Amino acid sequence: MKTAFEYNVCLPFVKCSGRLTRGEANDDTEGTLLSRVALFAQQHSTTRMPAQALRGSPPLYVRTGTIRRASSCPSSWRKTNYWPHAQRNVRGAKVNTIITPAGGYFTNEEIEQALEKHKPVLFFLTHGESSSGVAHPIDGIGDLCLKHNCLFLVDSVASLGGSPLYMDKQGIDILYTGSQKALNSPPGTAPISFSERACNKMFNRKTKPVSYLLDMSWLANYWGCDGKPTRAYHHTGPVSGFFSLRESLAILAEMGLENSWRRHKEVAEHLHKGLEDLGLKLFVQDKNVRLPTVTTIVVPSGYDWKEIVAYVMKHHQIEISGGLGPSAGMVLRVGLMGCNSTKANADMVLAALGDALKCCHKSKV
Amino acid sequence: MKTAFEYNVCLPFVKCSGRLTRGEANDDTEGTLLSRVALFAQQHSTTRMPAQALRGSPPLYVRTGTIRRASSCPSSWRKTNYWPHAQRNVRGAKVNTIITPAGGYFTNEEIEQALEKHKPVLFFLTHGESSSGVAHPIDGIGDLCLKHNCLFLVDSVASLGGSPLYMDKQGIDILYTGSQKALNSPPGTAPISFSERACNKMFNRKTKPVSYLLDMSWLANYWGCDGKPTRAYHHTGPVSGFFSLRESLAILAEMGLENSWRRHKEVAEHLHKGLEDLGLKLFVQDKNVRLPTVTTIVVPSGYDWKEIVAYVMKHHQIEISGGLGPSAGMVLRVGLMGCNSTKANADMVLAALGDALKCCHKSKV
Repeated sequence: MKTAFEYNVCLPFVKCSGRLTRGEANDDTEGTLLSRVALFAQQHSTTRMPAQALRGSPPLYVRTGTIRRASSCPSSWRKTNYWPHAQRNVRGAKVNTIITPAGGYFTNEEIEQALEKHKPVLFFLTHGESSSGVAHPIDGIGDLCLKHNCLFLVDSVASLGGSPLYMDKQGIDILYTGSQKALNSPPGTAPISFSERACNKMFNRKTKPVSYLLDMSWLANYWGCDGKPTRAYHHTGPVSGFFSLRESLAILAEMGLENSWRRHKEVAEHLHKGLEDLGLKLFVQDKNVRLPTVTTIVVPSGYDWKEIVAYVMKHHQIEISGGLGPSAGMVLRVGLMGCNSTKANADMVLAALGDALKCCHKSKV
Repeated sequence: MKTAFEYNVCLPFVKCSGRLTRGEANDDTEGTLLSRVALFAQQHSTTRMPAQALRGSPPLYVRTGTIRRASSCPSSWRKTNYWPHAQRNVRGAKVNTIITPAGGYFTNEEIEQALEKHKPVLFFLTHGESSSGVAHPIDGIGDLCLKHNCLFLVDSVASLGGSPLYMDKQGIDILYTGSQKALNSPPGTAPISFSERACNKMFNRKTKPVSYLLDMSWLANYWGCDGKPTRAYHHTGPVSGFFSLRESLAILAEMGLENSWRRHKEVAEHLHKGLEDLGLKLFVQDKNVRLPTVTTIVVPSGYDWKEIVAYVMKHHQIEISGGLGPSAGMVLRVGLMGCNSTKANADMVLAALGDALKCCHKSKV
């Protein structure tokens, strides 16, 4: 196995740096209550960094990608590509949807029209839409949400650390991500952060959340994020995962966030040029909204995408994947993020795809 | 730090064996989709072992201690000590409760009377009640539940692998545990297993679960436990945690389950004798129901339990804890489980407590 990319979204996994796996296996520091408390304090200050957030609550560490996507809201409204579709499974919520073709994005005018029409309490947007390969523009939407008195929730799972995002400056009220993408840590933890406006909304809600798992008041108290002197047990946290996340954030801090964004962009552009040199077409036509962590490639005419994916896995030990949701059957997807975002890895993918185009069956119809 | 015990339940953590942490950091095997699928298959066969279950569904891997305790049921009925109390936070469920003093247990006659009175659809029992130090007797309850047409749900978080439990033979319909106790793996995964009767109930329910996080039909499909050829994405699993759990189960299998039970019992009895030699009283009077993984000690007269806990931490680098829920303020708790269950560790705890009794302040009132 030369490297591991974000492959099938059914089974995502990233190769972790050696430093990270050593960090996770560190017996000397893992065991004590005192060090764990210190870890939390450190994380609370370090994790603000990737999203450039200065105000609001420190991040809460919800444990999984699933939970982070299911914080219940009395009523919500979302755009679709794939991930908002997944969000519709938040049960009991009244959800209104606007749709744009996969690979595209909404203008701020379209968003404001929808806010006026539906009057939602929450607007959900996926920043790094990994199903289509779009990094959705964020500027100005926070102001629109503030104007229309709704909260702005951003899913940055596939983008945080790999693509510019400014929680405060862009007026994001709720921001979450996953440990396992550009942050480069094993899956199992998911930082989430709330603005003061979001905290006011949550902590003053009149109905109980559908499950105490998603009771952010309780979680905030458990994590010591609510300023109260005593903390109530809520769940047993995945301690090793927290240490990994701390280490992954320390690596990112050492590298510099802007340097990480720049490297992801350069590697993605290198990959994109190489793909076009192979005669392949990129799925996202507008260069300015191409997600630097996940690249979507139009399935080349005459080929079976499944055969290409299987060929690349078998002969090059590289995992790429097909589409997901609205892009299923239409694209091949290549994830290069975190420590996997290097030109050398991009070149390996290009060589593998070039080989696949020669060796896989091509229909003449 | 000499060793880490199950200390404050707010912040539980176990010291993992070196083999386990190496297992978790194994870059060579972690990355590929193929090996992960193989891992699942292997886990499904291995994890039946600790509870001696042969029939029913293979275990589903729910990720956290919290989720595993919140599988929603239309209506449920539970005994109390602490953990059933925590269960009451399953929202929307109609819950009836019977109470026994902390440190005690229910006879099967008392249980049958309650089943007749309340006619529940589910009976919840904590096998290893870590708040009081009781291993609740299980024999015969499964038959009573079957007779009264209710499911039998057992929480074995603090007991599985350290104390005898037979899912099939004892008629348990739903059994869950945590990775971080006697199984000796980091926290973050929680195997759960269902009998055929439980599967029939779940898969034929007419109402939707309160959250898709707890939709066991979807989870069963995601894990490939429902026999269907295709699997739908539900969440991103904590892959490193699964590898740790596999390794911890392999260690247990090598040792032999009965040998593990025997060792936990011998170490607990060694600890209990030593505590009595120090003049301390055990909280659970009936020797036959003492939990071999967590020992509860009556707070010695004239002492402040918080001072003892702090002294042992500061001077011996050992973490013990006070009581929880109904035992709060009444007991000291010592956890010795998994690889921490050794006579050498018990002797360290005894030396530390002996020292604390000499050096901590003792009121003469």
